[in-house]
Amino acid sequence: MKAVGVVVEYNPFHNGHLYHMEQSKIQTNADVSIAVMSGHFLQRGEPALVDKWHRTKMALLNGIDIVIELPYVFSTGNATHFSQGAIQLLDAINCDTFAFGSEQGTIQPFLSTYSLLEKNKEQYNTLIKQFVTTGVSYPQSLYMAYEKLKQKEPGEYIDLSQPNNILGYHYIEAANRLKLSIKPVTIQRIQAGYHDSIDCDSTIASATGIRKAIFEHQAIEEIAAYVPPATLLQLEDWKTKYNTFISWELLWPLLRFAILRNTPEQLTHFADMTEGIEFAIRKAAKKSDTFAEFMVNLKSKRYTWTRLQRMVTHIYTGITREQLHQFSEPTYIRLLGMTSKGQAYISENKKHFKLPLISRVASTKDPMLELDIRASDMYAQCINLASNQKINGDYNTPPIRIQV
Amino acid sequence: MKAVGVVVEYNPFHNGHLYHMEQSKIQTNADVSIAVMSGHFLQRGEPALVDKWHRTKMALLNGIDIVIELPYVFSTGNATHFSQGAIQLLDAINCDTFAFGSEQGTIQPFLSTYSLLEKNKEQYNTLIKQFVTTGVSYPQSLYMAYEKLKQKEPGEYIDLSQPNNILGYHYIEAANRLKLSIKPVTIQRIQAGYHDSIDCDSTIASATGIRKAIFEHQAIEEIAAYVPPATLLQLEDWKTKYNTFISWELLWPLLRFAILRNTPEQLTHFADMTEGIEFAIRKAAKKSDTFAEFMVNLKSKRYTWTRLQRMVTHIYTGITREQLHQFSEPTYIRLLGMTSKGQAYISENKKHFKLPLISRVASTKDPMLELDIRASDMYAQCINLASNQKINGDYNTPPIRIQV
Repeated sequence: MKAVGVVVEYNPFHNGHLYHMEQSKIQTNADVSIAVMSGHFLQRGEPALVDKWHRTKMALLNGIDIVIELPYVFSTGNATHFSQGAIQLLDAINCDTFAFGSEQGTIQPFLSTYSLLEKNKEQYNTLIKQFVTTGVSYPQSLYMAYEKLKQKEPGEYIDLSQPNNILGYHYIEAANRLKLSIKPVTIQRIQAGYHDSIDCDSTIASATGIRKAIFEHQAIEEIAAYVPPATLLQLEDWKTKYNTFISWELLWPLLRFAILRNTPEQLTHFADMTEGIEFAIRKAAKKSDTFAEFMVNLKSKRYTWTRLQRMVTHIYTGITREQLHQFSEPTYIRLLGMTSKGQAYISENKKHFKLPLISRVASTKDPMLELDIRASDMYAQCINLASNQKINGDYNTPPIRIQV
Repeated sequence: MKAVGVVVEYNPFHNGHLYHMEQSKIQTNADVSIAVMSGHFLQRGEPALVDKWHRTKMALLNGIDIVIELPYVFSTGNATHFSQGAIQLLDAINCDTFAFGSEQGTIQPFLSTYSLLEKNKEQYNTLIKQFVTTGVSYPQSLYMAYEKLKQKEPGEYIDLSQPNNILGYHYIEAANRLKLSIKPVTIQRIQAGYHDSIDCDSTIASATGIRKAIFEHQAIEEIAAYVPPATLLQLEDWKTKYNTFISWELLWPLLRFAILRNTPEQLTHFADMTEGIEFAIRKAAKKSDTFAEFMVNLKSKRYTWTRLQRMVTHIYTGITREQLHQFSEPTYIRLLGMTSKGQAYISENKKHFKLPLISRVASTKDPMLELDIRASDMYAQCINLASNQKINGDYNTPPIRIQV
């Protein structure tokens, strides 16, 4: 069986994801689709709307055959780290190809761009340094250096100012650097812009827009046009059980407690903290009653919103720099769920997997996995949930099986 | 002006406390009474029912002239440490005497007991060791060694199985060891037993019984017979503002979060943690939905309830062994409140105080004080308080002044 891999958060799974997954299978002629999905904390430094089990069900009910977890170490990392972990895992589970969405929509310009930048690595770095020295900002210097190289060697290259092109470039860069056998394919994105609100004339909306609509209206029906029925079902199941969706706003009393419980010096030990920010974080936490207020009080030109959210993610989960940066590569394939077809694929290919497959957490000791379990524990500490309902933990939740 | 000192928690101030304070003034012929009061976390490893500001008002409205704070370092310490900090502070603020309640009721047997044990220190320790070696429990060995010494030198000694006698003994021991000029006086307790429930035929009940009644009935009227009107007023004011009283049960979601956010290894760094308990604490936290469940799951013969509660207090406040044990003596006198007479005493005696008097926290840098501020911050993190009400912090609360 031939497998195509996709890198996802499914927060939540929407019509754009459905299109991407279907095209991935068609364009690669794959029998099986495998998603490597972030667990409870995501790349932009946010907790997922609903837990990884509900998001796994959304994936499986919508046509994905196997869902494996992108460990916390990578799911909360920067683009380079995130991409490397994801592509290595898809390669480890023997995917022939991985398919990513991009604004570009064709693969050759990605490969040309990669060759151009690899071949001229030194000159590229020198150019960047030159621009930075003249007072140009770092992102702008990157852009200008890239433009210079393109002029020198004309060809068809990608537009590196588009967010999905950038991520795609990092996937390809990781696959090449690690000399993986997995091959890239790209699907033209038909989705709305990354942060766009939902639009009444379309059936495609960004996940950000969908989450915004859910939180603003606290009603799932609002987003029915933009997500497949199986997503709606899972969101309804979650809402019935827990009465609320998960956001930083909900976790804010715990996050504030975690921040104020540490001295500035102690705060510096958490992952991704940069020097000096510890004072600003404590000060902002002291005077803020909500997460929104906190972020407004904390935000400055020096750090992006994402960067700050990633820092507070690690403070929230209590994961230190030392704990996070002891790992450079995934050490296991964590199975979150599978269809019967996915199960057949695993039986057939298991002996060729490049990493051990973990179905039951309880029987495994792995320091990277311990951070995933910790992240799940911390995610499940939400207060204000409907009484007597607990969010599932890693120890008591076996892989989800769907008969399709 | 002559001052008498008392060591208190006032959690809350009740009729037994009123009697003790009045007798203290009468029996020492003092013009002024000074209370050294624990802040937000108490000796039995519990958060106070209401904050230190409300408890200060109770004290001042009921006849105490000056309230100073027993720093967190001592207020959460064992009997030796607690007593030493308290007596040193009363001495530092120039009290002529300190008056403690005891089952004994007369001071001479305390002094005889102290002489007996001091004079025979070596023999006492040898006897204890002998009994322990034969398999007798440590507290029982202490008792048996003490009985042996008493037989050797007959005289009038105290019964060291009574909780208030024990505490009184520690006060006297601290005053002697440190060669303080402050003199001890004891007042016969007329209070109910330490843990007794309230009793309809009496106007005296233990603070434990009173708290129990408050939590069981969630109605302050229930305790009206056992506390002075000023206490009732302060409790009502608190209830109106915050809608609930503070207990471990209320803080449980935050405490559990704090426990689970640390690896067992990290837990060992908090103050008072003994080896091996970190695993039991995490395990009990994982499976407990309430603090009561947690304690039942955690309790074993090896540790007393108080000992366990003190450990989790330090986990809750995030205070490490290193932070707590860097101090052996108080470094300041923190003024929480005063009456006009108290103010006159301070003006008259300030230059003779043995430690600096702190009225405004914002203008002081002191590492011991920083732990008090941290404890207040953590105490104020309670969730589920009536909306828009914040518990006062140390920075924005000046000493309370009462005109009487």
